[in-house]
Amino acid sequence: MSFVAVDWGTSSLRGALIDDAGRVLDERHAARGILGVPAGGFPAVFDALFGDWMAPAGRRCLISGMAGSRQGWVEAPYCPCPADAADLARHVIPVVADRIAMVPGLTDHHDGVPDVMRGEEVQIFGAMQLTGLADGLFVLPGTHNKWVWVQGGRVLGFRTFMTGEFYALLAQQSILSRTVDAAAPLDADAFAQGVSRSTQGGGLLHNAFGARTLGLFERMSPAQLASYLSGLLIGEELRSQTLDAHADVVLIGAPALTTRYALALEGLRITPRVLGAEATWAGAHALHTALQGTDTAYP
Amino acid sequence: MSFVAVDWGTSSLRGALIDDAGRVLDERHAARGILGVPAGGFPAVFDALFGDWMAPAGRRCLISGMAGSRQGWVEAPYCPCPADAADLARHVIPVVADRIAMVPGLTDHHDGVPDVMRGEEVQIFGAMQLTGLADGLFVLPGTHNKWVWVQGGRVLGFRTFMTGEFYALLAQQSILSRTVDAAAPLDADAFAQGVSRSTQGGGLLHNAFGARTLGLFERMSPAQLASYLSGLLIGEELRSQTLDAHADVVLIGAPALTTRYALALEGLRITPRVLGAEATWAGAHALHTALQGTDTAYP
Repeated sequence: MSFVAVDWGTSSLRGALIDDAGRVLDERHAARGILGVPAGGFPAVFDALFGDWMAPAGRRCLISGMAGSRQGWVEAPYCPCPADAADLARHVIPVVADRIAMVPGLTDHHDGVPDVMRGEEVQIFGAMQLTGLADGLFVLPGTHNKWVWVQGGRVLGFRTFMTGEFYALLAQQSILSRTVDAAAPLDADAFAQGVSRSTQGGGLLHNAFGARTLGLFERMSPAQLASYLSGLLIGEELRSQTLDAHADVVLIGAPALTTRYALALEGLRITPRVLGAEATWAGAHALHTALQGTDTAYP
Repeated sequence: MSFVAVDWGTSSLRGALIDDAGRVLDERHAARGILGVPAGGFPAVFDALFGDWMAPAGRRCLISGMAGSRQGWVEAPYCPCPADAADLARHVIPVVADRIAMVPGLTDHHDGVPDVMRGEEVQIFGAMQLTGLADGLFVLPGTHNKWVWVQGGRVLGFRTFMTGEFYALLAQQSILSRTVDAAAPLDADAFAQGVSRSTQGGGLLHNAFGARTLGLFERMSPAQLASYLSGLLIGEELRSQTLDAHADVVLIGAPALTTRYALALEGLRITPRVLGAEATWAGAHALHTALQGTDTAYP
């Protein structure tokens, strides 16, 4: 029997009706992220969006993302790393018993400082299915990027980078907004200059100011400076990684972002595989299948 | 005869009446930064604030800061580094001939990327006078911090760091604003933890996210997290410097900021000298004196 998967984020959500074989039968998007749902309003929003899909008796739903946070529908405590799909399945909690279940996020620690993800874990297990890879580095660009190390089908650990949020703040709210055209399309050459500059050691706090002075001295246009700033930030993110040239790298995300990371990685002679939204549905299907198994069950 | 010095910034200005010996006779502040002055409005604002000080025949005024930028009263083209006080004096331009003069900023270049300052150059030459130092590292914390290398009384070069603006953006406008109490006073222990974390190589884009998770897991209070984030940023700024433990370091700025930099530098066994607003007036006096000399003249 087909099931419903929902990726419920902070500012928007998307759902899919997926059959037993993992095929997506239908998909829906809505601007009803958890910040747009009033207290106690989750059941009504869910029914309005997915009531028809949930009508058949025995139809089940898996929800992932920020809906499982303290500000969400039901808080699903984080599953600690290392974790494989079966570990994650064991941490799924009921929203409506045997009907709607919440996937927890993952947590990791770096010298006493916690790190967290919610929603990306489903994409990672989906990407393993789609690529057949049980080992590799999985990179999920977004507002808060995740760099995830996978070995033997287990998520060993991960780190979050606020690159996307830094870009939005700097391009739209800082003094750089006067010289940067944040809406401009990618300029690959200016982007490469930004990546290259970030490797020269001045540090992001200094290099970012160049996106002001290069505009002030009319060395770059506002459109070029948007890509230059993006290159500075992504270059800085790559600079703090220990990358193994022989490891498989999988990028998961929107094409506008994965294109930039692929460009920056190519400069390091790394050619990543690239996946999009399909990773979420593949991961939800894998998890749903695990929950139908004998070891674990829909809570 | 005494003269008038004005430090005219983006959001505010301050002026001083200074006698021949460099003593400050009177001081004024106003919230009339260049962004608050309408087009063509500079003479009227200046007269309203300093008309009485300028009344005596032959009274002169030196203006520094953003009033000399393209958006200011009269654009004073940047003086290139290396530059000593005499070089700077030769680049001063007239606003009202032999009456009001504008001090230019300094410019430097790092592998083709320009860097600029406006106003800080006066503080640096003032700090040399006040400390008697002709060699050293002069650090001016603020929205856009300046690290300035001085040798033989000349400014060899400098770098700008957007540390202050990054802090304001992150603490007030990013997701971190939910866990950080931006108005909290300094917590020296949390600050030191932030400085220490920044030296461990995760990179600012990653480390900043810790100011979210440490709050989420209730490991630090919002007040502690404000100092932790400040420590992360200042630590990151220090990390990208090549510091010579034997060089003299002079901090110039508001006590709330210089205290933090002094703490972070002490961790590197560097004890800086600390100056405040007096550096501006000492620098204006030095420059005014140079302009009264035989080599250069008030333009």
